[in-house]
Amino acid sequence: MTDISIRRLNASDSDFDIALAKLLAWEDSVDHQVNESVRHILHEVKTRGDAAVLEFTEKFDRLKVGSVAELEMGQDRLQKALGAIPQDQRVALEKAAERVRDYHERQNQASWQYEDDDGTVLGQKVTPLDRAGLYVPGGKAAYPSSVLMNAIPAKVAGVGEVIMVVPTPDGVVNDMVLAAAAIAGVDRVFCVGGAQAVGALAYGTETIPAVDKIVGPGNIFVATAKREVFGTVGIDMIAGPSEILVICDGKTDPDWIAMDLFSQAEHDEQAQSILISPDADFLDAVEASINKLLPTMERADIIATSMTDRAALIHVADLSEAARVSNRIAPEHLELSVEDPDSLVGEIRHAGAIFMGRYTAEALGDYCAGPNHVLPTSGTARFSSPLGVYDFQKRSSLIGFSAAGADRMGRVASVLARGEGLTAHARSAEYRVREGQSDE
Amino acid sequence: MTDISIRRLNASDSDFDIALAKLLAWEDSVDHQVNESVRHILHEVKTRGDAAVLEFTEKFDRLKVGSVAELEMGQDRLQKALGAIPQDQRVALEKAAERVRDYHERQNQASWQYEDDDGTVLGQKVTPLDRAGLYVPGGKAAYPSSVLMNAIPAKVAGVGEVIMVVPTPDGVVNDMVLAAAAIAGVDRVFCVGGAQAVGALAYGTETIPAVDKIVGPGNIFVATAKREVFGTVGIDMIAGPSEILVICDGKTDPDWIAMDLFSQAEHDEQAQSILISPDADFLDAVEASINKLLPTMERADIIATSMTDRAALIHVADLSEAARVSNRIAPEHLELSVEDPDSLVGEIRHAGAIFMGRYTAEALGDYCAGPNHVLPTSGTARFSSPLGVYDFQKRSSLIGFSAAGADRMGRVASVLARGEGLTAHARSAEYRVREGQSDE
Repeated sequence: MTDISIRRLNASDSDFDIALAKLLAWEDSVDHQVNESVRHILHEVKTRGDAAVLEFTEKFDRLKVGSVAELEMGQDRLQKALGAIPQDQRVALEKAAERVRDYHERQNQASWQYEDDDGTVLGQKVTPLDRAGLYVPGGKAAYPSSVLMNAIPAKVAGVGEVIMVVPTPDGVVNDMVLAAAAIAGVDRVFCVGGAQAVGALAYGTETIPAVDKIVGPGNIFVATAKREVFGTVGIDMIAGPSEILVICDGKTDPDWIAMDLFSQAEHDEQAQSILISPDADFLDAVEASINKLLPTMERADIIATSMTDRAALIHVADLSEAARVSNRIAPEHLELSVEDPDSLVGEIRHAGAIFMGRYTAEALGDYCAGPNHVLPTSGTARFSSPLGVYDFQKRSSLIGFSAAGADRMGRVASVLARGEGLTAHARSAEYRVREGQSDE
Repeated sequence: MTDISIRRLNASDSDFDIALAKLLAWEDSVDHQVNESVRHILHEVKTRGDAAVLEFTEKFDRLKVGSVAELEMGQDRLQKALGAIPQDQRVALEKAAERVRDYHERQNQASWQYEDDDGTVLGQKVTPLDRAGLYVPGGKAAYPSSVLMNAIPAKVAGVGEVIMVVPTPDGVVNDMVLAAAAIAGVDRVFCVGGAQAVGALAYGTETIPAVDKIVGPGNIFVATAKREVFGTVGIDMIAGPSEILVICDGKTDPDWIAMDLFSQAEHDEQAQSILISPDADFLDAVEASINKLLPTMERADIIATSMTDRAALIHVADLSEAARVSNRIAPEHLELSVEDPDSLVGEIRHAGAIFMGRYTAEALGDYCAGPNHVLPTSGTARFSSPLGVYDFQKRSSLIGFSAAGADRMGRVASVLARGEGLTAHARSAEYRVREGQSDE
């Protein structure tokens, strides 16, 4: 294996801003053929229900059954999977689930209300979704950890029913995924995938119940279908390639940092790994570690492509400049591999998850630290948050006017409504004002 | 004016479910010509910046200026508008702003963190957006109340800069809108509208800064443009027609209820007004009030069309059935015009805003109760919330492992990562495990 060369940038270069923008550029390519195909599948599932689901499952997953009911995996099947997986994996899944549950319970939101001097009640009522759908990819990208990360916040939020869909091409079932579903408390599991699964969850069929929100990762067909059904149901984010940004003061073992960058790069060729340091010699040392360790990696080809095409080693004047560059990137994962992460974190404004200190490898957060591993990608941490309990709850405003409050505020509403030319609004308010100002 | 006839439904009818579904059916029509036009405008603004903004502003708003800078309204202009509007309107706007600010301050979210027994730190850091864009429609649908409802939550959230765009066709400026911007503390105002304004906010131009999220109502061009730029920036919801659902025990003045229904119907022909009551005679009385009051309304034509096409009077067995029907509708606005709203509200699971008791007209909430009037429409209250401070803040997960914690949890992560075939993840975690398990 010949050495790979990693792009170098220097924040003091005059063209740094342009080079950084080019490095980060990533656009979700719109594929018209995929769009057309997805629209067709959704239309068929919406209008023909179970029959369409069966046809597409036979076509795409080569799985022929007589009814959608046969595609359901009952709780006994999930329990069987839990019993079948190796003991160390079961213990690890249960430990991870416990920590994820514990963290997410702290995200639970409470309803509140208060009363003002007039006796007017104002508040916010928090309620869970009735039903959530969880898409889990099948085949090689089947990640039991994603089942935990998507299902547990929904259950903690109090969602009435969590319905999981997972494709089982050729009937191949992943026991780790089913075991994770059992541990997370998923209510029902259907072996359906692709756009047809998204359609079934969005519109409901005779057998698969319609849900209120669909979450979970998937390929381009699944992502496109989620975009299409948005509005009929809620969706979580549409994820781009995964990224890691490491800020290091130059005093962490360069092998550790190289492996942290690899842990992102091994996901796929488009994944992005960036290291920022004020220590130019350290950037050299990490590059040497990269080339030393690369041949030992199972996914060396994917890592080499990802690192060559999308990685960068960025030299900065100091850690404050590193934080400023990081804020422009708004990374999905940010490691602060520095002596005093508590002080540096104050300068960080945008990041999906922040891993503080040399011992906090991103991989720990991916599996079992507690916080969610579904995070905003491609700079969307500027305006969005990790998947959380709040994604499975919604709020209703509460307003209760006393007669006195309606009298006082009805006058204000009347002036504003008439200012906007909305006289039914004005008269509706005026009816509640004493002396019947509305008798005009 | 001849009497209008309002659709009647009875929840005990065998075809009620189908009739209700038909009543609620509303699909955002996709207009391919609008899509094409919007994509063209966005592309031009993205690639040519100010020059494209000037061209489209001249074309669509018949406003020819030499530079985008001339389209900016400075703070002095906003203050001048505040001085120019009638005193009662200024007082009403200021009173409304004060109540909206007071309510929204209670939505502010705090960062939190905790430490487990190993000394591992876990938490959630809450930060405001750097910059938010607020679209305000111009012309006849220019609502100063919407400026307050969109800008105040952003300011309360701590957004660094709030940029407002508002079209001024033929140079016509609405002083109430500018006065509301002054009161809400909007930082910069540009007289640009349509898809070109959305593009300028999403991508930035030489003069208009790029924002992180765009909120606010607009016509089909604006809504389509917001859908297109979603991902580059955050957006708020895409609103459908406005709706009100009134549940009444039959003991509120039927004129009040008729006017409450009108206050929704006057928005536009597609607005929806529904009344549910267990008292059939009361439904008759409200229909009589509707026909008595309709000729006295300024917007009688719009109201008549909306009520004929989309309104319904629904008879139910009791208030619990009313709540069940309401939960299926998941209305934007829900009035509980009943003797004991506190007891009924416990049965309500989905609604944008709940107006409790006979004195609480929806119009009070639209203007000055305090809660936001930007609410989820078309049944999306099943999974979404009123616009709030939380829409202008985002969260970052915090994870800080001690050496002991990394040792303990690194073992768990390693098992799970190897179970998923992600060995770089595993080895990254194993480096932090004592005894260097990674030396393989």
